[in-house]
Amino acid sequence: MSENILDSLKFDAHGLLPAVIQDHDSLDVLMVGYMNKDSLLATIKTGKTNFWSRSRKKYWIKGESSGHTQEVVDIYFDCDIDTVLIKVKQKGGACHVGYRSCFYRKLKNEQGEVEITGTKVFNPEDIYKK
Amino acid sequence: MSENILDSLKFDAHGLLPAVIQDHDSLDVLMVGYMNKDSLLATIKTGKTNFWSRSRKKYWIKGESSGHTQEVVDIYFDCDIDTVLIKVKQKGGACHVGYRSCFYRKLKNEQGEVEITGTKVFNPEDIYKK
Repeated sequence: MSENILDSLKFDAHGLLPAVIQDHDSLDVLMVGYMNKDSLLATIKTGKTNFWSRSRKKYWIKGESSGHTQEVVDIYFDCDIDTVLIKVKQKGGACHVGYRSCFYRKLKNEQGEVEITGTKVFNPEDIYKK
Repeated sequence: MSENILDSLKFDAHGLLPAVIQDHDSLDVLMVGYMNKDSLLATIKTGKTNFWSRSRKKYWIKGESSGHTQEVVDIYFDCDIDTVLIKVKQKGGACHVGYRSCFYRKLKNEQGEVEITGTKVFNPEDIYKK
């Protein structure tokens, strides 16, 4: 019988592990979210990324309000089994601010100045309506 | 005067933020480590990745014992400013088990079976000598 890696995951004190979400095609890192065991299992079962919101203390499915879902292609585990890497097909943009990737700002210098390097793919006001 | 993003970082309750380390050339995600403000500033200043070890409760420089250093190319901040993405030139392998990337295991099925998809680039017994 093979080892079940899902039984060996090292969750943090809050029962969470970080999930790095990477675009399967461009290989851009899109975002980092947090998953507990249930949201990871839901991600595996449904093929859409499911997370646990630390601020709102609730489950959320990426794209549930925006339509910008992430279709899971592959899931990887790191050596310490405390982090997952998920390659996805991203619909629209991953970032709630409207960029394709949440990592849209690049450090310019030691003084902490940044430049916008990301691509804006939607207007959040059109998507997240009241 | 421009905003200094380094003054706006959202560290967690332990004063840390996750740092996703990505290979600048292959775009493979190599590892995720944790940085406090001092290790992030040291990373920026020295151009080598510096981390805070949560288990050993001490600073460490990637490659300090293995020689497998990570030369910083670019640093990105996410929308919530609670995660950094660092593109690096990786010498040798990022993973202490000997793989190029820590994410060397891919999930095969819902039963939690995995397959090794990573490339072994060194023998840890040769590198981490007593």
